[in-house]
Order: sequence, then structure tokens, then C-alpha cells
Amino acid sequence: WIDAPTRVGDLLAKGVLGAENGEVIVSDSTTVNLFKLTSAILDGREGALLTDAGNFPTDRYVLEGLAAGRGRELRLFEPADTLHGPSPEDVAQAVAHADVALAVISHVAYSSGALADLKGIEAAAGSTPIVWDLSHSAGAVAADLSAAGARYAVGCTYKHLNAGPGAPAFLYVREDAQSALRSPIWGWFAQREQFAMERSYDPEPGIRRFLAGTPPILGLIAVQEGVKLTAEAGLPAIRAKSESLTELIVTYHDEHLAALGFELGSPRDPGRRGAHVSLRHPLAWPICRALIDRADVTPDFRGPDRVRLGVAPLYTTHVEVFDALERLRGLVELGEHELVDAAPSRVT
Amino acid sequence: WIDAPTRVGDLLAKGVLGAENGEVIVSDSTTVNLFKLTSAILDGREGALLTDAGNFPTDRYVLEGLAAGRGRELRLFEPADTLHGPSPEDVAQAVAHADVALAVISHVAYSSGALADLKGIEAAAGSTPIVWDLSHSAGAVAADLSAAGARYAVGCTYKHLNAGPGAPAFLYVREDAQSALRSPIWGWFAQREQFAMERSYDPEPGIRRFLAGTPPILGLIAVQEGVKLTAEAGLPAIRAKSESLTELIVTYHDEHLAALGFELGSPRDPGRRGAHVSLRHPLAWPICRALIDRADVTPDFRGPDRVRLGVAPLYTTHVEVFDALERLRGLVELGEHELVDAAPSRVT
Repeated sequence: WIDAPTRVGDLLAKGVLGAENGEVIVSDSTTVNLFKLTSAILDGREGALLTDAGNFPTDRYVLEGLAAGRGRELRLFEPADTLHGPSPEDVAQAVAHADVALAVISHVAYSSGALADLKGIEAAAGSTPIVWDLSHSAGAVAADLSAAGARYAVGCTYKHLNAGPGAPAFLYVREDAQSALRSPIWGWFAQREQFAMERSYDPEPGIRRFLAGTPPILGLIAVQEGVKLTAEAGLPAIRAKSESLTELIVTYHDEHLAALGFELGSPRDPGRRGAHVSLRHPLAWPICRALIDRADVTPDFRGPDRVRLGVAPLYTTHVEVFDALERLRGLVELGEHELVDAAPSRVT
Repeated sequence: WIDAPTRVGDLLAKGVLGAENGEVIVSDSTTVNLFKLTSAILDGREGALLTDAGNFPTDRYVLEGLAAGRGRELRLFEPADTLHGPSPEDVAQAVAHADVALAVISHVAYSSGALADLKGIEAAAGSTPIVWDLSHSAGAVAADLSAAGARYAVGCTYKHLNAGPGAPAFLYVREDAQSALRSPIWGWFAQREQFAMERSYDPEPGIRRFLAGTPPILGLIAVQEGVKLTAEAGLPAIRAKSESLTELIVTYHDEHLAALGFELGSPRDPGRRGAHVSLRHPLAWPICRALIDRADVTPDFRGPDRVRLGVAPLYTTHVEVFDALERLRGLVELGEHELVDAAPSRVT
């Protein structure tokens, strides 16, 4: 079990991320991995931290905390096209200032589902390090990290890799960039000859240097199985099905939901979105509650006005998506969302 | 599930640690929790970091990393009596220098099993913060944190709380000390009104401010069950049984093992040790290998010369301990440890 973080990391690298053996570990949470990786990069680079204003909260918070702790600036940029998210041109412009230390960008935007041009942004960023957050893409959209020239990434395994809530996350560093980085958390699982125990800290030369405490084996086994199933199905087939499933939502929206006050909050071109679709509606919160309480459909509410419908291409069927949309339409037509307790709660 | 870190934390606080509701979360690893807590304390205090030279490797490494990152000194002190570990007098002397920011001390020493006088050390430390590592005591020895006046602690759940390798760890901060501290990892699970998502970081007022990413639910459920069983058995009964089990090892050592070149590496007084016993022997490594390979007994090798025998008082029986000792004696008498492959491996 002691090698599970790299063994499962290798499965993930080869089967899902398009990376090489020895470039990925599975450990800790996405938040902790993002902290370790961005902190390590900042040790070697002056300048501001950069991300887009619509990036996932924990990404913004981690950067905000690092900026505060190091007396750096956190710069949030607005993409020219907010629906489609950061473009290569946006990133080229944002890093054109010589004082950018690094940027953190999500491959698929949590709110709109917009798919970023990973390869194009890497090229546009030049020597400025981009840390990719693959949480909303890993297992649903191929990242092809090696081919795209990506150097750094983190991401979760509990969304499209199906490893269960809070399953351990992953951290990717391209082989040639590993030895220059040192995690800020000096833990015993990163120590060379770990069980000698009597010496000063001397981290492993490879990707293991980003480990910290004892790896969470129960969660790692769930990741392993999720990755195996994903790799077996193959990302091209998964991607094709996810495009078809989200296209069904978009078509149904146009035909039946737009008339009920919904607005598409995701890119219309299937090639520009990941595996979820946001439908905007002024009463999104009670609609989400009604879907859960009265229709056995589980969306995510994403404030202030989004009903986010995630499809898991590995097992969600077209019939299930169609049924969910029919129930959504039916309950809004009948005004059932006006009958639910609309008091806020922590999760939809 | 979203409240599992505090819900399981409350169970642990009341049933095992002698703390109050709202003072404990279960999240991340011991290493990451120690990093978060010591880093937060260092934000408010000048001076050196202190621990004893025999403390667990990850504790030393985390402090070494923090010291390096902040330009502080890491001071390792040798207890006057290394077998019995840090005493209140040792700590009083070490913190007498006005420039100590904090000290990290293990309640039970990983190597010798020595039990520290938690209450006495807290009193001796005065206003200097002590962060307790309860990894080797939680679930086997009562810490009685509130009664002892302890302010800060971390610890694992996979040793005597039986939650499985790498199960999420715990972090304790006494209620009155919480609001002054801010975790260095600003994650979305620590954010007030977490799902509003559109604002700057504003951490929860209570212990939740030390959360980071999504809590590992699979591991948390295992912790919950381990804690429930431990609380049901009750720490006084567990402690009485562990003293009796370790006393059996000590007695057997004196009668049969000392003659084979073993030396007791743990305190002789059962009141001064936790729930494991170290037996020192020049050939400890091949003896550990032979126990595993040829006798179906699983010790831990702890370098350079210790066979560490951990007893899990909740379910290890006296007969099992006696049988293990008989097998140990038998194989050393027959020289079976000279027949194993003594090449080093990462874990015993």
C-alpha cells in the first residue's frame, strides 16, 4: 500500500491525463495540492499571482492566502468572453506584464462548463508557469498534458473519476520540472529512505517529493477503480458521449425551457464545453430544491442563478437525462418550486 | 456528509480526547494538520521552533520546513532522560529562553513508547504554546485535553482508533484560541457561506477555519466507527488492558528474551508508557523480517535496532501477545532470523 500514491498516479497519468509514469501522485485534497504546487513555484519566481475572476473558489482562496502570506499581488483578470472563459489571447495579454509569477486556470470552468484551450494557453503563456486545475475535466475530457506542453496540474478524482466525495486528489509535475521544486509541507512520505527516520529532511528526487503524510488508502483504492473503468472505456468514447448528453440538454433547453425563463449558461458549441451544462434562472435555488425534494433529480445550485446539470458519461444514459429534463420542465410549469422551503442550506 | 469533519470531530472530542464540541475537526493528514496549526501559531509569535530530538520524523520535518521558510531557528533538545522522553523540567528549561515561539511534543513517543506528562508539561510551558502530537496515544491513553489545559493538538486515527492506513487525522484547538489563528491554506471548506462562491476569503469563526478541501468521506466513516467503538469500550478499560498487555511483554522479556540479547527499549513503569513496547536487539531488522515471513507476527522495525510491538487493546488478547512472544523467542533461539533475506525494504 505504501506505493499506492505513485502506482495509482501512474494509472491516472497513462489512462486519463496523457502524462508519463512518475509524473503524477494521488494524495491529499485538490486544495492542499494546489497550495503545495503554487507555493513551490513561487519560491523560485518573483511577481504577481494570476487567475481569472470566475475560477473555482478554492483556487482563488489558495492564491489569495499565498499572496497575503508572501506580500504578493493577486491579480484577477476578466476574460474578454466570460461565457467561454480564458482564451489564449486573454492569457497572453495577462502575462505580458513581466511581473507575473504564475497563473492558475481551470481546464473546464465549474460554473459555465466552458472548456479552455489548454494547448493554446500553454503556448500563449510562454515561460510563465500555468498550473491547470483539471477537477472538472479529468475523466470527461482528455487533457493530453504531455502533448499540450503542460508543466503543472492538480485535480480531483471525485467528479468524473467517480471515486466518491473527498477522495484523494492528484498532482502532476512534468518530469523535467520536478527537481527544481520543493513542497512547503515537509512530510515523512516525501523523505528519501523514509524509514531510516533519524536524519534531516532530504526529499525524494521525483514526484514523491510532493507527498506529505500517510496516503489515504481507502480513498486511493476507490480512485484506482474509477481510473481503471475510465481508462477501459477510453476518453474518446467518453468525450463523444458527454458531447451527445450535453447536446441533449441544450436542445431540450431551446425547445422547452427557454420559454419558462431559463437561459443557457454554457457554451453552445459542444467542442467548447465539458460534461456539465448550466441553466440560468432567477429562481434557480428553489428550482434546485424542488428537483431534489420532489423529482429525485440532483443538480448543483451554483450561485447566484445557476442550475448546474452534470452528466457522468461513464454511466448516465440519454434516457436518464431526458427524464430529468422532463421532470424539470414539469415542476416549473406547475410552479412546484414555489412550494418548497427556499431557506438556504449548505449544499443543494 | 458535508458536516462530517465536525460531527466526527465532536465524537472524538467527547469520547476520546477529553475536549469540547466544536474544538476538533477530522481532516487531511497529521502532517498537513501539523503544518496548518504550527504555521498559524507562528504568524503571531516571534522566535524559535522547538521539539525534542527523538520526536517523530514528520513532526521534525514539518518544523524544519517552516523554520527554513520563515528564517527561524529549529531547536532540537535532548531530554535529560532519553528513555522517558521530555519531562516538565526539560520543557521548562527549553522554553526559559524568551525567544521560543512554540514547541511540538508527542504524547507517546513513537520509538520508546514513553508517555509524556501532558498536564505537567502544559503547566511548565506557561504561555509558550505546545502543540501535542497525539498520534501514538489517541484511543489508547486518555489525553484529557481540557482538564490538562492543553490548547493545541493533532493526531492520527489509524493507529489506536483503527480507522485504516491514511485515514483522516484530527486537529484540536481550544475554543478560546481559535479566532486568533488563520490556517495558511485558505480552502473553500473553511469559507463562511461556502456556497455563495463569489466573494473573497472570509474564514468560519470556529474550528472549521482549519478545513481546506473536500473532506474524505470514506475515511471519515471509518474514523467515526473506530471512535464509536473506542468510546463504547471506554478509555479507562482500554488503558488498564494496555498496561496489562505491555506488562506481559516486559515480564516475558525479562524472563526469556534478555538472555537472547534483547534489551528493553521502553519505560519499565507501565504508568510511564503507552500501548507499545520496543525491544532493542543488534539484529532487529532480520528479526522483524523473520517474524513477518516465518511466524505470522507483524512488528514494526524502528531503526536502528528496535523491534516495536504494538498492542491494540481494543482487540488484541493476552493469548495473542503470549503466542507472538513465544514465536519470537523460538525463532531467535533457532537462529531463523539468520536465514531471511535481510535486504532493506521500505516497510517492515
